[in-house]
Amino acid sequence: MGNTKENGKEKGVALINKISKAGGHNGPNLGMVEMTVALHYVFHSPVDKFVFDVSHQCYPHKILTGRKDAYTNPAHFADVTGYTNSLESEHDPFIVGHTSTSVSLALGLAKARDLKQSKENIVAIIGDGSLSGGEALEALDYAGEYDKNLIIIANDNDQSIAENHGGLYKSLKALRESNGQAENNIFKSFGLDYRYLEDGHDTAKLVELFESVKDIDHPVVLHIHTIKGKGLPYAEANRELWHAGGPFHPEDGSREPENVAPDTTVFDSLKNLLDTNDKAVVLNAGTPMGLGFVQGVREEYAKSGRFVDVGIAEENAVAMSSGIEKNGGTAVFGTFAPFFQRTYDQLSHDVALNNSPSTMLVLIPGVYGMNSNTHIALCDIQMFAHIPNFVYFAPTTREEFEQMFRYATTQKNHPTGIRTLPAFPVAGEADTTDYSVLTNKVERKGQSVAIFAVGPLLKMALDVAEEVEKKTGKKITVINPRFVSGLDEQLLHKLMEDHKTIITIEDGELWGGYGQTIASFYGDKEMKVINHGISKKFHTDFAAEELLAEHGMSVTKLVEEVENHL
Amino acid sequence: MGNTKENGKEKGVALINKISKAGGHNGPNLGMVEMTVALHYVFHSPVDKFVFDVSHQCYPHKILTGRKDAYTNPAHFADVTGYTNSLESEHDPFIVGHTSTSVSLALGLAKARDLKQSKENIVAIIGDGSLSGGEALEALDYAGEYDKNLIIIANDNDQSIAENHGGLYKSLKALRESNGQAENNIFKSFGLDYRYLEDGHDTAKLVELFESVKDIDHPVVLHIHTIKGKGLPYAEANRELWHAGGPFHPEDGSREPENVAPDTTVFDSLKNLLDTNDKAVVLNAGTPMGLGFVQGVREEYAKSGRFVDVGIAEENAVAMSSGIEKNGGTAVFGTFAPFFQRTYDQLSHDVALNNSPSTMLVLIPGVYGMNSNTHIALCDIQMFAHIPNFVYFAPTTREEFEQMFRYATTQKNHPTGIRTLPAFPVAGEADTTDYSVLTNKVERKGQSVAIFAVGPLLKMALDVAEEVEKKTGKKITVINPRFVSGLDEQLLHKLMEDHKTIITIEDGELWGGYGQTIASFYGDKEMKVINHGISKKFHTDFAAEELLAEHGMSVTKLVEEVENHL
Repeated sequence: MGNTKENGKEKGVALINKISKAGGHNGPNLGMVEMTVALHYVFHSPVDKFVFDVSHQCYPHKILTGRKDAYTNPAHFADVTGYTNSLESEHDPFIVGHTSTSVSLALGLAKARDLKQSKENIVAIIGDGSLSGGEALEALDYAGEYDKNLIIIANDNDQSIAENHGGLYKSLKALRESNGQAENNIFKSFGLDYRYLEDGHDTAKLVELFESVKDIDHPVVLHIHTIKGKGLPYAEANRELWHAGGPFHPEDGSREPENVAPDTTVFDSLKNLLDTNDKAVVLNAGTPMGLGFVQGVREEYAKSGRFVDVGIAEENAVAMSSGIEKNGGTAVFGTFAPFFQRTYDQLSHDVALNNSPSTMLVLIPGVYGMNSNTHIALCDIQMFAHIPNFVYFAPTTREEFEQMFRYATTQKNHPTGIRTLPAFPVAGEADTTDYSVLTNKVERKGQSVAIFAVGPLLKMALDVAEEVEKKTGKKITVINPRFVSGLDEQLLHKLMEDHKTIITIEDGELWGGYGQTIASFYGDKEMKVINHGISKKFHTDFAAEELLAEHGMSVTKLVEEVENHL
Repeated sequence: MGNTKENGKEKGVALINKISKAGGHNGPNLGMVEMTVALHYVFHSPVDKFVFDVSHQCYPHKILTGRKDAYTNPAHFADVTGYTNSLESEHDPFIVGHTSTSVSLALGLAKARDLKQSKENIVAIIGDGSLSGGEALEALDYAGEYDKNLIIIANDNDQSIAENHGGLYKSLKALRESNGQAENNIFKSFGLDYRYLEDGHDTAKLVELFESVKDIDHPVVLHIHTIKGKGLPYAEANRELWHAGGPFHPEDGSREPENVAPDTTVFDSLKNLLDTNDKAVVLNAGTPMGLGFVQGVREEYAKSGRFVDVGIAEENAVAMSSGIEKNGGTAVFGTFAPFFQRTYDQLSHDVALNNSPSTMLVLIPGVYGMNSNTHIALCDIQMFAHIPNFVYFAPTTREEFEQMFRYATTQKNHPTGIRTLPAFPVAGEADTTDYSVLTNKVERKGQSVAIFAVGPLLKMALDVAEEVEKKTGKKITVINPRFVSGLDEQLLHKLMEDHKTIITIEDGELWGGYGQTIASFYGDKEMKVINHGISKKFHTDFAAEELLAEHGMSVTKLVEEVENHL
């Protein structure tokens, strides 16, 4: 046990070494040092299995399972990902990056264990923030019926990425304040056995607790109170700021100033909507900062009920937006693109079937978005564009976004999705398009070859056109589709008059994407169509421009292709 | 109040009149007669708003809101749908057919009411079976934080479609047995106020309860115990059988024998898997009968832990399948195609990102599946085919299904989805294809024109080929793709040798579907491609053959098209 505690300190040093130099999920990992040591002391991974929810708190686990170098030695920082990864280690049963999945995945491991008649312990470690997600709640419910070994650690640091939202957090608070004795225990209500530990940083007590449930013959919840950011006073003091980020100076937590001011396009439009329409609401699901509603700002709008954080509960947010619109309000929901995957049924059944004119802000999809395979979103067009009634916009400039957003939030004819960019280029002149008439925009008129370029790839297409003209003297056409949920058939017909080849480029997956709908349109006509998009694969840790180039999308490659078709 | 009770009886008669003659959701509606009368007596629809979960218990509500003729007069039976429908009546705020959505939708209505500063009551009516769905649990959690008028009726008849599954049902049972006084109240655990009523068929008590919460200033759960099938003894006695179906003789519940024996293709393969692989599990989510696991049969496999019903909790089932495979088991999950929409994130993140070789049985997607806009699934190819790692099969015969299923459940290289048909044609000879090599099957070899026909449309294509040969003496090619998540590029290249035109027909939506991927392949080659599929719309109450014909897919239309391209 003495050794165990020493291990804890050593792992803490390795952890701070890396996150201070390379950044990462600071708070969640600092809060898990002692617990991880105790877990590995009591249980025997990889025979016993740990499933970390979201898995952004798995750094101490990685340090203890043969991946220490990736935390102590800067030359090896890149050897491991920021999430559990079964390709890295047999101690990681899954690749995980979305929240609320651990109990379900653990139930599956447990179920297979029963069939094999083996005896390993299955341990799910889930943070309080993740508990509000539908997948986690469904799994807690089923775990309450399951009758074999399963250990669910509810790691309660009283914080999601931002503050928690939802009634169950009142219950968790009551449990923390009563040393686990409060009435109406949410876990017991799901039929689960339950134990409480107040100090989740006391390694001896953690070991004692884990030993008391090792090889237990039924599911049990261990509700353990921890401190997010434990050990770094500045991180403990501001848990939201220190959820993730870096690098920083470990002695005082100071960081180098950001070089680039964050793009405020999305926030500015949302703020303008709230300031000019008193029946408008902005909804989010546990990621308010993604919409620019940082601490201080969001409290103001929350007070008047205009900014709503439902917690990590995207399904509820999307369905609520439909109800808001049906009773005369204006609803906008926004979250990062990969998390929209959890709302497909709500988008289709609750919103689109009812033709509720909700607006969905799909934050940074495509190759310029998040580039970990746990968080990529190369199929947002595939998800949104084929749902009936939805109009899905792909703006290319700040001004286009503003006008599309204005249109979406003032019309009452259909639901709308709008993709965003990490940084919108400024066109310099207002977009005054009437988006109730959906048309593609001819950005540059030429002949023979036309390039359809989705969203952020417009600039590449314009550069290609310029380069081609420079080299050959010939003008080609460049088209900004603006909406990718339908075709501008009038334009497509007109292009046949003086074009022979269409090239499409898009920042997401080729298969089932936008370009193929154009290929289908011209399938039986005298027009060649060449579609470029990303291959169907969980690409990871890529540089956007390189991934695009590998798939035929670079100025050099496209210029050559165009020349071959002039 | 006397009038109210009389109304109840009259509505009951109208209800039984229709369901006995035309069929429908018998049990759920019989259980709601008195409650619906009391709701309309106390609240003032459409100002006050009722949101019925799933909405298959809304017949009494329709009878009371101007749609009585559709229940009393057979000539008007078809005037209304079996679900709430905002296009039918201002008393129906939403079109609803999926479970677990009511609390979220009601929260949205409530939120908009607050912004408008109006005062209407918002009432969600949710059955116990629907409570286990992630969307419902997320919404209950958020309702526990919400602080204005919202009345949530938990209509507890202790039954889902089949029996309930999940730990929360132990809590509901304890509450029923303690007149609502049991510890660990699931609703209170979410921070919600709570009242219990034991006899949900006592109109006077219902009225009293509703009057006590009318205009309440915060969310409250009314937990009301009802009897599914109330009033018809045979329906009360067998709640699963009487969930839905008909017609029947009201005096004794007898039904005409079914003309057609149900197709057992899916069940036979599942049973064979369980009987030959002791590490295999079949998972379902509240619809065991969809897989052929009727009462009696499923208990046997459930006892040994080989058949698992997680309750209405599709997300949990799909994620569990990933865990089962990762720990050495074999997992098959099956449900009706539209309900897979709620598992998109789990299919992508929990299963496909981890490349877990789970098998997903997608029951009766496409135009031959359910034909209400609440339940259509014309976009299953769009959902499955672009997820990396997934192989998505579209079998055309019983034997193909059997071989694809055998392949899927014995290989460990990738996740698989398999579409099913309402009735599989029998080929008469075993399919011995090695599906580890994905190829399209040339069903009939010809020249000049080739038809790619997905799944159930193969027969149409073969008929077209035969008809063309009869009329012109020319043989055309017919191709059964068998898998729709990729292309058989070798075949596509080979077709260019002696074909000029490809026609694709599919039983789902055109936009983003299978055919467009072929159009894209040939986009810059000397081959014409004509894609046929269903238009992007929430089609409803259609006859499959008619809908197909409207979209160019009938033998007559295709023969003409082929002739034009010979």
